[in-house]
Amino acid sequence: MTSARELVSAYWAAAEARDWEAFGRLLADGVVYEAPMSRERVSGKAAYLRFNAEGFTTDWHLTVQRIVADERTAASWIEMNDAGETYPGLSFFDLADDLIVKITDFWPEAYEPSAARAHLTERL
Amino acid sequence: MTSARELVSAYWAAAEARDWEAFGRLLADGVVYEAPMSRERVSGKAAYLRFNAEGFTTDWHLTVQRIVADERTAASWIEMNDAGETYPGLSFFDLADDLIVKITDFWPEAYEPSAARAHLTERL
Repeated sequence: MTSARELVSAYWAAAEARDWEAFGRLLADGVVYEAPMSRERVSGKAAYLRFNAEGFTTDWHLTVQRIVADERTAASWIEMNDAGETYPGLSFFDLADDLIVKITDFWPEAYEPSAARAHLTERL
Repeated sequence: MTSARELVSAYWAAAEARDWEAFGRLLADGVVYEAPMSRERVSGKAAYLRFNAEGFTTDWHLTVQRIVADERTAASWIEMNDAGETYPGLSFFDLADDLIVKITDFWPEAYEPSAARAHLTERL
């Protein structure tokens, strides 16, 4: 049995390698991908492989910052580097029978903090 | 011993209840809070309690969507409702000795998907 942590680690390694065959072996046939903030959904393994292979054609690279995993769910925090810009990607995974059945992705952007709490913080 | 899941669940329950005493009991004295996208950092329990009690004065309410937890780290996905708007909050937690020692928060915003992959997705 593959642990949730191993599965998510293999998912990101296959994505970084553009090894869509290895990537596909980690996915259930009925896998669903959702990006709530852009309201995008992709349903099924074939469609999700196309989405990844054809939907992002820049020379992006990712590094895994953290994987949290329990029995049937996981979360990851990656840093994506694309055309000199680096930004985080946050994903939640649902797993069943050693395969990924759902991925939910979030891609937060930089924003200015509220001035009302500036006296309570320091800046990174 | 309190599990990581119980700790994070109690953290959000105390925040929703504005029970800053209960909230503080979950935090290590040297707790560090970071929001990478607004480059805010708060260091220490007293400062972090002030940040929460004084920094967000609207009538916000949160519901926990998901907690993923392993031995020493956790991740959560909440929905925040503030002035009629609902948006997600994603947090990663570092734990030690049954206390929270670091919180890293992300607050992604809605964005338009790339037209180049519109044929590969449906809209939520």
